[in-house]
Amino acid sequence: MAISEFELIARFFGRPGAERAEVVVGIGDDAAVLEVPPDRMVLVDVSHFAVERHFAADDPPASVAHRALGGALARVAARGAEPFAFTLALTLPNVDEPWLEAFSAALAALALRQRVALIGGDTTRGALSLTLNLQGLIHPGELVPARGAAPGDLLFVAGPLGGPALALLDRLGELRLPKAERDAAYHTLHFPEPEPDLGRALAGLASAAGALDDGLCAGIEALLGGTGAGASVHLEQLPVDPVLRPRLHQAGGWNLLRDGPAPAQVCFALPASHQEQLAARLQHTSIRAAWIGTVERAGGVRFLLPDGSAL
Amino acid sequence: MAISEFELIARFFGRPGAERAEVVVGIGDDAAVLEVPPDRMVLVDVSHFAVERHFAADDPPASVAHRALGGALARVAARGAEPFAFTLALTLPNVDEPWLEAFSAALAALALRQRVALIGGDTTRGALSLTLNLQGLIHPGELVPARGAAPGDLLFVAGPLGGPALALLDRLGELRLPKAERDAAYHTLHFPEPEPDLGRALAGLASAAGALDDGLCAGIEALLGGTGAGASVHLEQLPVDPVLRPRLHQAGGWNLLRDGPAPAQVCFALPASHQEQLAARLQHTSIRAAWIGTVERAGGVRFLLPDGSAL
Repeated sequence: MAISEFELIARFFGRPGAERAEVVVGIGDDAAVLEVPPDRMVLVDVSHFAVERHFAADDPPASVAHRALGGALARVAARGAEPFAFTLALTLPNVDEPWLEAFSAALAALALRQRVALIGGDTTRGALSLTLNLQGLIHPGELVPARGAAPGDLLFVAGPLGGPALALLDRLGELRLPKAERDAAYHTLHFPEPEPDLGRALAGLASAAGALDDGLCAGIEALLGGTGAGASVHLEQLPVDPVLRPRLHQAGGWNLLRDGPAPAQVCFALPASHQEQLAARLQHTSIRAAWIGTVERAGGVRFLLPDGSAL
Repeated sequence: MAISEFELIARFFGRPGAERAEVVVGIGDDAAVLEVPPDRMVLVDVSHFAVERHFAADDPPASVAHRALGGALARVAARGAEPFAFTLALTLPNVDEPWLEAFSAALAALALRQRVALIGGDTTRGALSLTLNLQGLIHPGELVPARGAAPGDLLFVAGPLGGPALALLDRLGELRLPKAERDAAYHTLHFPEPEPDLGRALAGLASAAGALDDGLCAGIEALLGGTGAGASVHLEQLPVDPVLRPRLHQAGGWNLLRDGPAPAQVCFALPASHQEQLAARLQHTSIRAAWIGTVERAGGVRFLLPDGSAL
């Protein structure tokens, strides 16, 4: 590469996101050193994000940063953990300075808002890809399982859905959105960002939770994973931007809402007895958790249209 | 891929290396959970290892595992930390089962010997590469710096050198080794493995330490890094296998010993007052640390031949 790895890191990754008390030695040294607070466990999520597999070569670099780090943040939050530090191994075909500037600025800004620190990295030449290793803190006993929601549990999603589905319909030419709506829809697809307080809100309360990378249906099925339980999901309860809502009745909108990607969004199951505690925790956050249905004894996952019929 | 990521991980990465008390949730779940012992900090090393950059497509898969994990283990040990857990993001051009079997068996065996646990991973399709994120434990105050050796400090290497240099000479056709010697030399190049107790031996004692990925000369220069100090290194003191030693006088052997790669080997500087403590710690290990020279006030790094002249 034209500039050395050292120069590249200093120049583009000197902004390490949030300052965290747990980071004793951060980015720029040979290895990072973390101090884990007493009575906390560390959750580790590793993900690889590669061009032509997970994103397109001409996707905006800020979008690549958002989808890679945003997805990892959502997965860590779904376990009830508070994300705090991450490493980035970055493979680049060449030193494209405008790309790196936009990517690293978006990554640092997202990290700052989400209160996570970039603590180290490695750079190599090759086809564009990223490996993120995101760590979160959790109190023992508060880990939220990925599976195991029980009959009677209430189902929630932690944020708005539908934008990515509309953006995909627009891209396929099946829908013509006015510019403002289209921009809003594409923003949800390209710049997903979870709620920073979500992990602590779910910790020790949710009976199961997961990110919606593969869509709502797959996400709900994962919560039930192998228990034989079923679920009813009321589509009209799904939190959808009011501007976007009427569009969902067109051109398979409900189907895309059920099956389309919902990057960095989280669904969770909650025992009814924990509802008040959750509401109290959410009161001082911007999280708008919406009840969408209920876990049932059996019968698979049924998605109900506003008229009560199954989708 | 023909088999799913889940099947691939279960089939080839179900052997997680060592069992560690710190690993509460290990490989096979959505995220790993670690419990860091009280009064320990966590050191994090991230490294990307890619075909055609760091290894050849036809290198033995077991060698790829050794060079990637062995290098990371050496870097973590050089900081005075005890490696304990790692994640692996693996990109594969296809599911080559014999390759995966040999790679994962070697990785698991090395992890077991080195008492580290594979706690999680991610697999993607693409050009062959690995990203390792290795964590180590260290007591506060015992972190060994990468730089800052002081005049008067003694210089050591923690294990034998020269094998990789001979293997490279052999590969270049500049030397014809008998089969047994050639095999031994290639083994040191292809299957590097640090001493598992090294990190704990150096912790709090060494004034600076580093891995010798870029050779002994670069490694010593890094220990002095920016202090203006110099060093004398006595080449005849370098620990070299007695079978290999006479070969080093041929065909630029000393030069390759000074500048050639020494994968997973570590050099360190030690204040003379810490010599007894180090000896006591090494007594019950297999580490054979060899004194090779001394840090001086100035003058750069001088490598002295057996006759006292500079190389």
